[in-house]
Amino acid sequence: MADYRAPVKDMMFVINELARLDRIMGLPGYEEATPDLVEAVLEEASQLAAEVIGPVNTIGDAKATRVEDGQVFVASEFKAAYQQFLQGGWSGVSHSVEAGGQGLPYVVGLAVEEMWQAASLAWSLCPLLTEGAARAIETHGSEALKSLVLEKMVTGEWTGTMNLTESQAGSDLAAIRTQAIPDGDGFRISGQKIFITYGDHDMTDNVIHLVLARTPDTAPGVKGLTLFAVPKRLINPDGSVGDRNNVRAVSVEHKLGIHGSPTCVLDFDNALGYVVGEISRGIICMFTMMNHARISVGLEGVAISERAYQQAVDYAKERVQGRAPGHDGPVTIIQHADVRRMLLTMKAHIEAMRAIAYLTATHLDEAYRQPDAEARSLAQARLELMTPIVKGWCTEIGQILTSIGLQVHGGMGYVEETGAAQHLRDARITTIYEGTTGIQAADLVGRKILHDGGVALRSLIAEMRQADDELAEHGDQLSVIRIALREGVDDLTAATDWLFENHERDADIPGAVSNSFLMLIGTLAGGWQMARAAAAAARRIATGDADKSFYEAKIVTARFYAEQIMPVACSYRKAIESGSETVMALSQEQF
Amino acid sequence: MADYRAPVKDMMFVINELARLDRIMGLPGYEEATPDLVEAVLEEASQLAAEVIGPVNTIGDAKATRVEDGQVFVASEFKAAYQQFLQGGWSGVSHSVEAGGQGLPYVVGLAVEEMWQAASLAWSLCPLLTEGAARAIETHGSEALKSLVLEKMVTGEWTGTMNLTESQAGSDLAAIRTQAIPDGDGFRISGQKIFITYGDHDMTDNVIHLVLARTPDTAPGVKGLTLFAVPKRLINPDGSVGDRNNVRAVSVEHKLGIHGSPTCVLDFDNALGYVVGEISRGIICMFTMMNHARISVGLEGVAISERAYQQAVDYAKERVQGRAPGHDGPVTIIQHADVRRMLLTMKAHIEAMRAIAYLTATHLDEAYRQPDAEARSLAQARLELMTPIVKGWCTEIGQILTSIGLQVHGGMGYVEETGAAQHLRDARITTIYEGTTGIQAADLVGRKILHDGGVALRSLIAEMRQADDELAEHGDQLSVIRIALREGVDDLTAATDWLFENHERDADIPGAVSNSFLMLIGTLAGGWQMARAAAAAARRIATGDADKSFYEAKIVTARFYAEQIMPVACSYRKAIESGSETVMALSQEQF
Repeated sequence: MADYRAPVKDMMFVINELARLDRIMGLPGYEEATPDLVEAVLEEASQLAAEVIGPVNTIGDAKATRVEDGQVFVASEFKAAYQQFLQGGWSGVSHSVEAGGQGLPYVVGLAVEEMWQAASLAWSLCPLLTEGAARAIETHGSEALKSLVLEKMVTGEWTGTMNLTESQAGSDLAAIRTQAIPDGDGFRISGQKIFITYGDHDMTDNVIHLVLARTPDTAPGVKGLTLFAVPKRLINPDGSVGDRNNVRAVSVEHKLGIHGSPTCVLDFDNALGYVVGEISRGIICMFTMMNHARISVGLEGVAISERAYQQAVDYAKERVQGRAPGHDGPVTIIQHADVRRMLLTMKAHIEAMRAIAYLTATHLDEAYRQPDAEARSLAQARLELMTPIVKGWCTEIGQILTSIGLQVHGGMGYVEETGAAQHLRDARITTIYEGTTGIQAADLVGRKILHDGGVALRSLIAEMRQADDELAEHGDQLSVIRIALREGVDDLTAATDWLFENHERDADIPGAVSNSFLMLIGTLAGGWQMARAAAAAARRIATGDADKSFYEAKIVTARFYAEQIMPVACSYRKAIESGSETVMALSQEQF
Repeated sequence: MADYRAPVKDMMFVINELARLDRIMGLPGYEEATPDLVEAVLEEASQLAAEVIGPVNTIGDAKATRVEDGQVFVASEFKAAYQQFLQGGWSGVSHSVEAGGQGLPYVVGLAVEEMWQAASLAWSLCPLLTEGAARAIETHGSEALKSLVLEKMVTGEWTGTMNLTESQAGSDLAAIRTQAIPDGDGFRISGQKIFITYGDHDMTDNVIHLVLARTPDTAPGVKGLTLFAVPKRLINPDGSVGDRNNVRAVSVEHKLGIHGSPTCVLDFDNALGYVVGEISRGIICMFTMMNHARISVGLEGVAISERAYQQAVDYAKERVQGRAPGHDGPVTIIQHADVRRMLLTMKAHIEAMRAIAYLTATHLDEAYRQPDAEARSLAQARLELMTPIVKGWCTEIGQILTSIGLQVHGGMGYVEETGAAQHLRDARITTIYEGTTGIQAADLVGRKILHDGGVALRSLIAEMRQADDELAEHGDQLSVIRIALREGVDDLTAATDWLFENHERDADIPGAVSNSFLMLIGTLAGGWQMARAAAAAARRIATGDADKSFYEAKIVTARFYAEQIMPVACSYRKAIESGSETVMALSQEQF
């Protein structure tokens, strides 16, 4: 069973030192989010994660979800855990108090979410989707719609879904065919949606589906799409739940992982729906939901890796096998240098990923709450730049780390009962849903780098360079980290210059280099945060902080990142500078 | 269903141009292995793979193997495919004619084996283990033992297993406890072995277990181990099968993948066994088996990646989604630059891995068959150096490539029915069994590099540098490849120099740098072979070869390898030069 004491400490370090809670606390509405309160919230959440949600994870994996007559049933243990989650008041941690939430900063909500995800990824998807759907309705919905559904969604009494994909429309939303026909005050929705996470279940009385559909006589492509709220059960004027609406689960997928969460095919047959936002502005409304969801899915890469790491460390401390220099007789495998290398690869990446995910969350807090328009706009630009990196990089690294977690277990890792394999299977969806890594990379290079002429990226690069001053204060102690960061930033600068000098001569360049850009910026952003972390740790040690062991470990982990992870930056730079010619050279038949 | 036409062409290219079949054909006993004969054999094997073995792959995945009263039952379709394999005379392709085999070079047997593995990894493990066991008996067994079991094993009438692991003895064979007590002409074996692949099944009348066990009054550790042949059923003097021996399958594991192959716990309770080789020389005998098996498992990384690649290419050519520069309207996803990058990452690695696996196989052929003792010894040294690289690097890359194969399918890849996920699940065992990547890396740096003072490695490096002459003949056409190879070899040279200058000052250095060394040499060996392949392809094009499209694709693929894969060499070099200090710095509690 996962234990979250170690992560709470690291979470608080990240929130205080790297994400700079003091900066967020100054924003209107967040005045009460003191470090002590935040720590108390995280400690309490870690208990629910360890005692209630964690234990249902393997049960959900083993029991198939099932559909009967349009209704989906999940493991009864999932349902019971959800009830305890509601009773504890854990839904809507970072939703506004007006909407029925706790009003805590988004970054705190994200730290809490990491615990649910680490405890059970499959279970945690239900609150994740609900929160995103509620946020889209809070931002774009009419007052009438909000009074009908918002509080019930924020409190988790009802859950939410996100209905984009159709069989011909996955990454390409322009191909959506689901129809919405005006009917009185509402619309009638007809069509089939696939891959709908928690598209139906028996944990709550009602489910509010957010559905992208096409109204008559509108533009083709994404510009003709409108967002609708379609309840599973009709809602009476007094807010109570009435008859079934015409939406039914047709089937659930048989997936590689996240077995506990039903992934549904939903059939809408003249189902009553309410417009969210304006007609033909569905994509914009959906992006409100999707941008939150992308950060949350990026966080899944962190959380599932943390879970895999804890399990691998436990095993490495127990398993006796072989001999190691400086030890008499057989040793536990954590004494082997190569096992340490594996565990440090996990630890260093996890801490770096957590830092950039939380930091990005504070940009979202600022983009909402900064009273100053320019500060808001800068935060928004950074948020938009970092969102595809958090989503893409953290989930790609999550694949590697959960696989290492399994590897540490040797042959036992391949046996399902050990539980290490489940993390790998569960993690494997994260680079796909909410936009594949390819979609994140295209978004990054196209909309977030080329579109503003590189302004947001160059501002990030400048900030990375400034970290050198912080590191310089600690003399030789952090010099390995300084050098690695400087070399990495040079690589990113060179790659950025190359992109702007070359992309206009060949339309395939952005696509060909996008993945390398995403991985390069992710690697560097992580290294930058680990460098800042090392400087902060050195300061704490210098001032005689009682928790010296934690801070010393932080410096070692940052050094490992600098020595073993940052060097990959130069290979991404070289790949980028190779451009698109070779990538595009083969005919279809030559593959 | 997998189709093997493309690989047969590439296999023949590798065998003729890179592994240099003409060199092997000159060896005693191999005179008849002409290119035409080899191609005919591969074409025929590809049919059996596509029509008989491939179709049972998903069936074996879906049906659990089961144990009843000590007897294991596999899917009946596996049994039927095995019968067709035997009827076609496919067992023992590269075994000696005297022992009942076909007498073809080992490299040809390996190419044939790649097809069985690609068709169904789970199924292919049975012939793999049988061949390894037969080879150990052929090399080390007494005439009496050979006359009892060898021909039946070579022809596949009986199968073989490899019994090393016990619950306390995985990577560490010194901890083996299974006992062997002398009894008349034989021994009585008692103990429990775990993770025994095809440890029992109902495909053949008998199974010959090769078991490492401890005789009384011998040295502790691996020096006290002896190898025994323990039949599942006793063998009558006339060679017919008699009563059950005292060995029983206790259970089969519930694994992440290779579901079709039973992984057994075997209980030996006073079972009759025959010594193989000499008392207390079990490890040496086992290594005969294990070295073959390691190359074969390395090949599994190639084969399963090839299967995943074919499936991903098929999907990318069919799936319509989004728009691409230079195309009107929606395109098949193979038109997207990032999808091409993914497919080329697979293709380039697969061709490189195939080349180094086959080349290593020819070293084995030479080590057996070279009449000249010095040539034999050079081949043996190269074989020993390359074996952990083929095993470790090809299987590690196989993890990445099967994961990319799934990614190309988007959401469909996560649905089990698509079949892409099975390749990932199946591939996941390959970095673990027959010695984890950590064990391969330790073997590489300890026994294969430091032990001979770097002689074998420096001879490999020198040969890599010589490839530059071949490339130089083609002017600017291959200059990108030349530069990448030169830079990569410089990195390897520097890392090697660093290792020899530093390893004595710190006993943890070999362990700390071993994985990076394995990955660095693997990456470079692959790049070296791709460079040679490009030069060979350029020659063919220059001489007007009819298959111009194949050779042009080979040059593009080699350029992709040079541009996008070789640059990672510099990051491994940097990791190596960081040494062991950081890796060893944390206390257990700090993890």
